[in-house]
Amino acid sequence: MPEQMQQIALASRPNAAPTAENFRLESQPMPDPGKGEVLVKVHYISLDPYMRGRMGDNKSYVAPIPVDGKMEGGGVGEVIASNSAQFEPGDFVMGMLGWATHAVLPAATLMKLDPAHGPITTALGVLGMPGFTGWHGLMEYGRPKKGETLVVAAATGPVGSMVGQLAKSLGLRAVGIAGGPDKCALAVDTFGFDACVDHRAFDTASDLRKALAAHCPDGVDIYFENVGGKVLEAVFPLLNNHARIPICGMISWYNAGGMGANAPAAGLTVPALWSAALTKFMSINGFIISNHWDRLPTFLAEVGPKVAKGDIAYLEDITDGLENAPAAFIGLLEGKNKGKQLVKIA
Amino acid sequence: MPEQMQQIALASRPNAAPTAENFRLESQPMPDPGKGEVLVKVHYISLDPYMRGRMGDNKSYVAPIPVDGKMEGGGVGEVIASNSAQFEPGDFVMGMLGWATHAVLPAATLMKLDPAHGPITTALGVLGMPGFTGWHGLMEYGRPKKGETLVVAAATGPVGSMVGQLAKSLGLRAVGIAGGPDKCALAVDTFGFDACVDHRAFDTASDLRKALAAHCPDGVDIYFENVGGKVLEAVFPLLNNHARIPICGMISWYNAGGMGANAPAAGLTVPALWSAALTKFMSINGFIISNHWDRLPTFLAEVGPKVAKGDIAYLEDITDGLENAPAAFIGLLEGKNKGKQLVKIA
Repeated sequence: MPEQMQQIALASRPNAAPTAENFRLESQPMPDPGKGEVLVKVHYISLDPYMRGRMGDNKSYVAPIPVDGKMEGGGVGEVIASNSAQFEPGDFVMGMLGWATHAVLPAATLMKLDPAHGPITTALGVLGMPGFTGWHGLMEYGRPKKGETLVVAAATGPVGSMVGQLAKSLGLRAVGIAGGPDKCALAVDTFGFDACVDHRAFDTASDLRKALAAHCPDGVDIYFENVGGKVLEAVFPLLNNHARIPICGMISWYNAGGMGANAPAAGLTVPALWSAALTKFMSINGFIISNHWDRLPTFLAEVGPKVAKGDIAYLEDITDGLENAPAAFIGLLEGKNKGKQLVKIA
Repeated sequence: MPEQMQQIALASRPNAAPTAENFRLESQPMPDPGKGEVLVKVHYISLDPYMRGRMGDNKSYVAPIPVDGKMEGGGVGEVIASNSAQFEPGDFVMGMLGWATHAVLPAATLMKLDPAHGPITTALGVLGMPGFTGWHGLMEYGRPKKGETLVVAAATGPVGSMVGQLAKSLGLRAVGIAGGPDKCALAVDTFGFDACVDHRAFDTASDLRKALAAHCPDGVDIYFENVGGKVLEAVFPLLNNHARIPICGMISWYNAGGMGANAPAAGLTVPALWSAALTKFMSINGFIISNHWDRLPTFLAEVGPKVAKGDIAYLEDITDGLENAPAAFIGLLEGKNKGKQLVKIA
């Protein structure tokens, strides 16, 4: 057992896009697990867009990380010491391990991983929070029907790729949006999207809309919202009557002054949005997957076997070393990752 | 049988608020019912905010009325000639009779009124389209739970008063918004709202919000949207997590350049609205009641007896004479009516 562990702290709050100076790598004495707690050696940490919100001090659905506090986030690792009857050394677990080499957590906050479900990294992506988000949002709020058309951005990411593949399996037309020709090719070739539009190839929402419209001859019935901004503006007028919009994120606005009233407006006004919600009988639902843990067993039972059989593909971008987590996170917010962004720690 | 009938035509499209010049009273030869049709002598016509949308040529969920065409709308009347086995002279019916003294319509588009349900005017208000809109929107999309707080504007109107009374009967706190102290007193005294805020007493959404907040100490769980504009802006930040927003109209924007992208924005940006939809897990549903006729029997079975017993109150503003319909409609858009606006024809 090493005497020291490393972690990454929030050195300061970012003004807009986070920079390297907002993070600090530091050493700490190795903590001892208390009663009911376990010590976990972290193998992989998950980087997710929502963490940008937690770095700011805007009122949001999750409390901000305190300055000088450890960067929070999900991870998978191995139990190396346990004061709980639930776990023993050698067990693999998933939980909010944070950006660190080791973590002490109450046993009750950890989930034991079943090796039959596949590599442990899948618990952070395709079978973890992002995949679960895509599945729940699509099935619960998207209410997909055969023959309809779905649009989702970040199409090769862990949410978008789940949404697109589920939609295809249900007989929908799935049109992706992604940044750059490589990701668009991946969306079609690896994830089976009918088409994928490169948003970087279009300067304006209007031009992006024309490109999308060409691939959505029957309009758009489900817009799975995970980006906001220019993409929202482009898609919105293409929505059909009775369109459904599950909202799980809006990454394009996260770096731009936070998620509040100071975020830059898309070229869409509230009256136009609100009127369309009425006159097109839209159903718009925001959600965070942590309110829906009761559905996790159903998700794993339905989707786990499809992942194991290779019917649902997934893509991981693995960065090596805790010290490189800040750069990987900054890259994630810039769309540099192709699939699920992970950092290998041990 | 008179040889002539009168009707009101759309003389020209309004630019903003309709004026008397947009309407024309004209005589027509009395029409004969064809096969399967009936001739109805109109007793009352209904004036409703949605008609403003039909006077413009904006793309909307209903086709515009052609210039020189008859003003459309619901009405109740008596069958005076029938070429259908469904109806005989003396039957009272409800249907899209238009702004006219007489109308010929296919029998299949008319609903026979049951005198047991109360005065025939109730088929245009509390037990007609507006009451049905309030009931369906609240029950289907509002998902009211005992102890929650609901806010609805136009609180003495036929939609708002239904929503408020149903909410109270289900154990919610109901806070109304209305224009002027008289209507606010009516909302509390006649319809049982816990409180009613006079939006005319506040110049800014921010001041209106403070007044509302004082009556909503636990925030707002359901905002039943029928007005948009300043009221939307005032209520929006008061919404709680998991808030539901059924949208059935936005009268405050109808006169202001139509319902499209040119309508004036409330002081609420799309990113702020969209972010709140996500971070507060909101459920926003636009609807038009004509998509939900299958629910009408359930509505009448549930609410009809309550109206007959006086457990649900209603208020009618009756203007006399077809020639006065335009002025009454202009007044409706200005909020001059207190309850359901009708015009007595026969």
